[in-house]
Amino acid sequence: MNEQKTLIYMDNAATSWPKPPGVVEAIERNVRENAANPGRGSHEMAVKASRVLFDARKRLARLFAIGNPNDIAFALNTTHALNLAIQGYLKPGDHVIATSLEHNSVRRPIEAMKRRFGIHATFIDADEWGRLNVKDVEDAITPSTKLIAASHSSNLLGSIAPIAELGELAKRRGVKLLVDAAQSAGVLPIDVETMGIDLLAFPGHKGLLGPQGTGGLYIHPELDLEPLMHGGTGSKSEAPEQPMIRPDRYEAGTQNTPGIAGLSEGVQFVLREKTKAIHDKERDLTFQLMEGLLAIEGVRILGPEVGVERTAIVSFVAEGMDPSEMAFLLDRQFGIAVRAGFHCTPLGHETAGTYETGAVRASPGYFTEKSDIVSLVDAVKEITNTMRKRN
Amino acid sequence: MNEQKTLIYMDNAATSWPKPPGVVEAIERNVRENAANPGRGSHEMAVKASRVLFDARKRLARLFAIGNPNDIAFALNTTHALNLAIQGYLKPGDHVIATSLEHNSVRRPIEAMKRRFGIHATFIDADEWGRLNVKDVEDAITPSTKLIAASHSSNLLGSIAPIAELGELAKRRGVKLLVDAAQSAGVLPIDVETMGIDLLAFPGHKGLLGPQGTGGLYIHPELDLEPLMHGGTGSKSEAPEQPMIRPDRYEAGTQNTPGIAGLSEGVQFVLREKTKAIHDKERDLTFQLMEGLLAIEGVRILGPEVGVERTAIVSFVAEGMDPSEMAFLLDRQFGIAVRAGFHCTPLGHETAGTYETGAVRASPGYFTEKSDIVSLVDAVKEITNTMRKRN
Repeated sequence: MNEQKTLIYMDNAATSWPKPPGVVEAIERNVRENAANPGRGSHEMAVKASRVLFDARKRLARLFAIGNPNDIAFALNTTHALNLAIQGYLKPGDHVIATSLEHNSVRRPIEAMKRRFGIHATFIDADEWGRLNVKDVEDAITPSTKLIAASHSSNLLGSIAPIAELGELAKRRGVKLLVDAAQSAGVLPIDVETMGIDLLAFPGHKGLLGPQGTGGLYIHPELDLEPLMHGGTGSKSEAPEQPMIRPDRYEAGTQNTPGIAGLSEGVQFVLREKTKAIHDKERDLTFQLMEGLLAIEGVRILGPEVGVERTAIVSFVAEGMDPSEMAFLLDRQFGIAVRAGFHCTPLGHETAGTYETGAVRASPGYFTEKSDIVSLVDAVKEITNTMRKRN
Repeated sequence: MNEQKTLIYMDNAATSWPKPPGVVEAIERNVRENAANPGRGSHEMAVKASRVLFDARKRLARLFAIGNPNDIAFALNTTHALNLAIQGYLKPGDHVIATSLEHNSVRRPIEAMKRRFGIHATFIDADEWGRLNVKDVEDAITPSTKLIAASHSSNLLGSIAPIAELGELAKRRGVKLLVDAAQSAGVLPIDVETMGIDLLAFPGHKGLLGPQGTGGLYIHPELDLEPLMHGGTGSKSEAPEQPMIRPDRYEAGTQNTPGIAGLSEGVQFVLREKTKAIHDKERDLTFQLMEGLLAIEGVRILGPEVGVERTAIVSFVAEGMDPSEMAFLLDRQFGIAVRAGFHCTPLGHETAGTYETGAVRASPGYFTEKSDIVSLVDAVKEITNTMRKRN
């Protein structure tokens, strides 16, 4: 077998890597020169730190067509943003509709609120290619339905949900729409106005090309959420509870200024390259990967067929082979990083019919080369051939 | 007036600066080389990321005498950790005792839970020097008291609470003890076992010398908290709710690996230098600052008297002068960064009798020089003299 090769990183759906130029430098500069607390002092460093956060907010607002940057609250990660949205918006007795493609970061807060606060939930089944029927969502609406929560793109299948249609439906029926943009922010067009998105949760460390420890939630200006965390805000300190002023209301405590400085550079890169160009390149790599894998005997790919729009996620299973063994061999023998398992979406695996085994997920990124795809396909070919000889 | 001088940073109680050698490098290395998700894959990068988190946990466990590193959950900041502790432990009808020295990060979650879940709270008054009478705390215990929450050191007064005595009281009366170590972690000895601490919330970016965006909560192994965030954990993905396994139960979503890598170096530095040596140096600087300021006409210092143990926090007011004007002049004319205002503790200001005006807070750190203290004292002298001539 081959020796360990230079690393080929194909786990961008977990965390994108590498980062574009400027990201690491911005983080470093902020720790070295700019370590004070944003919004908590008037001295030069604190003012600079506030500016870092505001610049990042402005860039994110531009990317998502958000009118007021202060309607964006930073968060530790998408999970934090989703918990703020779900726990902060739903009240006892409320009904929420989600889909069978949700990540545990949507499913688990809903399940916890069912148990703790007696909310009700309906999970609408997508078909095994990840297609969601908006009519099914509409049929599930009851008089107590307050929220539709949908993953913009499945982190297992790469399928893309009809967000604008869901937004139209939500508006028409007086329901709010929460979008989990974990796999779409930075790679699919997102316009909160025209798509009717009331709450948009996004990661900083995936398609926005920033570091781990960043993310955020857009909150429609007319929507008030119960804060998830209560504490110091640097504004209206004398009030016994969180002030209404945004983003302070949802950003208690010291924020991750260096991380957000890095995120800001990532978003700037996305704005410069343009989401469409990024998506086009990633889609071409994705189709190349799918075609390569489909030519291998016994390999099945989950999600939409080749040619159908998707994000750069290719989950697959090789007949008679445990996905974690495949991932292990790809890493150890070929230096290719992919991910095996359930990807925190048992619902998605039920949908795809892989609940028992899980799957291997390969997720190229904007910095992936066509030759990397060839290497991955060749490696899977070699591994499956070896396995067949062994059996 | 003087021109802007080289920056003298005296706002370490907000965020410590500069960081010791190795912190920035560790952050950078993790973003550059090691960007994968800890605990979410078996490939080399993901394994390395897991190791970063575990090493940081081990060092923190050593610093705080915590038996099992997995009883530490990382958090965005101390506020996050305190909200997890308070919201996760208290149930409707429970009674909590806190003190009049609490930061809003303790007060506000308590106030929110009073409103939302009908918990009850008693805030015990400390005297104006920040002294807390443990007997007053004991007298406030009722049959429904479940928690005592106390700031280890007041972020306004620098006074130190008798944590070990509170721990003894809590144990004796079957109540749990939550300690807010925002101003003490890394500078005062903390031993969760001998001090009887059940929940310890700490920041990464203050005395532990790591970057913003880090912190954590120690949770006694016999205590189960309702998670604040629910989501992907990389373990037991098929379970509809958070698994019981630690730290996964309390760490949903992708953690701030680069930030925690930096924190780990900061903690390592503290372990090497030793908390006692750090505290001794900071206390000497603090007494020097207090003596210098007290020699200036019209200056009053809040909190314990010179010679009484405290952390490196010196809050003061100059007669007839608005604290924010003082802070502004120190920054613009002398290049000295301090903080003016309420420091997110209106309770503390009520205690100190400065609720109307706020105060100037100067907080030296381990890297502060004696000459910096002299510069600050001279600057305050010059500012107050100028003001007197003006009036």
